[in-house]
Amino acid sequence: MGAKRVSITLALLFMFLAVAVSSSQNHKGIKKQYKPCKNLVLFFHDVIYNGQNAANATAAIVGAPEWGNHTILANQFHFGNVVVFDDPITLDNNFHSPPIGRAQGQYIYDTKNTFTAWLAFSFVLNSTDYQGSISFIGADPIMIKTRDISVVGGTGDFFMHRGVATIMTDAFEGEVYFRLRVDIKFYECW
Amino acid sequence: MGAKRVSITLALLFMFLAVAVSSSQNHKGIKKQYKPCKNLVLFFHDVIYNGQNAANATAAIVGAPEWGNHTILANQFHFGNVVVFDDPITLDNNFHSPPIGRAQGQYIYDTKNTFTAWLAFSFVLNSTDYQGSISFIGADPIMIKTRDISVVGGTGDFFMHRGVATIMTDAFEGEVYFRLRVDIKFYECW
Amino acid sequence: MGAKRVSITLALLFMFLAVAVSSSQNHKGIKKQYKPCKNLVLFFHDVIYNGQNAANATAAIVGAPEWGNHTILANQFHFGNVVVFDDPITLDNNFHSPPIGRAQGQYIYDTKNTFTAWLAFSFVLNSTDYQGSISFIGADPIMIKTRDISVVGGTGDFFMHRGVATIMTDAFEGEVYFRLRVDIKFYECW
Repeated sequence: MGAKRVSITLALLFMFLAVAVSSSQNHKGIKKQYKPCKNLVLFFHDVIYNGQNAANATAAIVGAPEWGNHTILANQFHFGNVVVFDDPITLDNNFHSPPIGRAQGQYIYDTKNTFTAWLAFSFVLNSTDYQGSISFIGADPIMIKTRDISVVGGTGDFFMHRGVATIMTDAFEGEVYFRLRVDIKFYECW
Repeated sequence: MGAKRVSITLALLFMFLAVAVSSSQNHKGIKKQYKPCKNLVLFFHDVIYNGQNAANATAAIVGAPEWGNHTILANQFHFGNVVVFDDPITLDNNFHSPPIGRAQGQYIYDTKNTFTAWLAFSFVLNSTDYQGSISFIGADPIMIKTRDISVVGGTGDFFMHRGVATIMTDAFEGEVYFRLRVDIKFYECW
Repeated sequence: MGAKRVSITLALLFMFLAVAVSSSQNHKGIKKQYKPCKNLVLFFHDVIYNGQNAANATAAIVGAPEWGNHTILANQFHFGNVVVFDDPITLDNNFHSPPIGRAQGQYIYDTKNTFTAWLAFSFVLNSTDYQGSISFIGADPIMIKTRDISVVGGTGDFFMHRGVATIMTDAFEGEVYFRLRVDIKFYECW
C-alpha cells in the first residue's frame, strides 16, 4: 500500500500548493480568474441642493473653489466642489422603491477639463436581508461607462470584507439628480 | 506502522483544512467566532472652534452648506458640516492625561433629520508602547450607543493591520466638546 | 522506504507551518522580514491655485477655517485648509516628463502648531505599463523626512492590492508648488 500513501501525500501537496497560489501573489494574467465570494447590486439616488429643493435634497455642496459657491456647481467641470450626501439605497432603479439603507459620505469633483470625481462613502444597510456597513474609496472618471472603485472595509454582515465595486451612472437629470448602479463584488469574505 | 503514517497524514490534512477555512470565506453565522489578534482601547477628545476658544480648540468647521457658517454648527442636524481635527489621544477618559498620540482627519455631519456623521481619520501613536498609525473609515450613527467602523490600514507597529473599531460617545458638552471611546479590534495582524 | 515517507510528510509539515506563519499573526519583531510582492516609485506634482495661476494650477483650496479663504493657505500652519487636487504623476522628478496618470483626491492641513496633513487620494494610472487605480489614506507629518501611509485598495492591474507607501517631499517652492516622491510597496498582491 506504499503507492497509495505516496499518492495521498502527493494529493495533499498539490492541494497545499493550490492554496498557496490562491492566497498569495499571482501572475498578472491570472487575476481575472477570481470569483467573488459575495455579490450585491444596489442603486443609490442623489438629489443635490440647489437653493430651491430643500425638502427633497439628499446632498449639499459644502466646499467650493474661490470661483464657486454652495448652491450651483462650479465652472470648469465643477472642479473643487465637495458634496456631502445621505442618499437612499434601493434594490432597483426606482427612486420611490423602499430604501434598504443609506449611502453616506462625500464626493469631490476633481478635474478642470473633464468630469471626474473622487468618492469616499459608506453604505449603511438596514433591511431584513442585510445589516451592516460597506466602505468605498476611489477615483470615478464619470464619462467612462463603468468605473471600478475599491471596497476597503465592512462591518456587521460585511465584517472585514474587501472587494471591488463597478459603478455606472444609471440616470441623470441636469445637475440636480443622478442615480448610480453599484455592482459590489467581494473577493475577501469572512 | 502504516496506520501511524496514515494518521499523521490525516492530522496534517485536518490542520490544512482548518487553515483553509479560517483564511477564506465562512458561513454568515460563523463570523462571531473570530478573535482579535490585537486589541486596543483608546480615547480621543474633540474641542470644536466656536469663535471664542481659539487657544483650546482642536477642531474647526471648514465646510458648510449654503445655510451654514464656520463658527456655528449648521441647522438641520449640522448636515453638511465638514470638521477637520487634530485631537489628543489618551489611555483613559481624562482630557488632561498625557496624550499618547493624535487623532487626525475629518468628520462630516451627513443627515438632515438625525445626527449621523461619516468619519475618515488616522491615529498617529507616538509612545513608548506604540509607534505607528492606524487609519479608520466609516459611518457613525451617533445616536446609537456603540457603532462599528472599519480599520482599513496601518503603518509602523500596525503595519498592514485591518480590523473593526467600536466607537462610543463617552461624553459631550453642548456643541463644543465630545470624547470618543474607541475599542480597536484587529483581526488581521502581520 | 518508511523513513522517506516520513521525511516527505515532515517536509510538508514544515512547508505548511511556514505558510501559516507568513499568512497570519507575527511577533512584533518579525514584521521587518516582509518583502513587497510589487514595488513602484512614482512622483506627483501639485500646483495650488493662488488667484493668479489659473492656467497652471492643479489643485485648489476648497475648505478653510473661519479665519481663512480660498486663495491663500490659512494662518496657523494652514490648519483647516482642504485642498482638492488632480496632479500629474511622472516616473521621474521632472514636472515636464510625460505623465503616466493622475493623482486625484484631497489633502487637509490638520494641526495648529506644526505642518501636518491628512491624505486621501487615488493614483489613476493609464500607461502602457500600468492600467488601474491605487487608493491611499493616512497621516502625513510633513516635517519628517519620510512618512508612511496606507495603501488600502486597488483596481485593474492593482486589483485588491494592499500595502504601505513611503512618501517624501522631493521639492517645494513657497506655498505654490510641491513634488512628492511615493515609494509604493505592495505586500498583498492578487
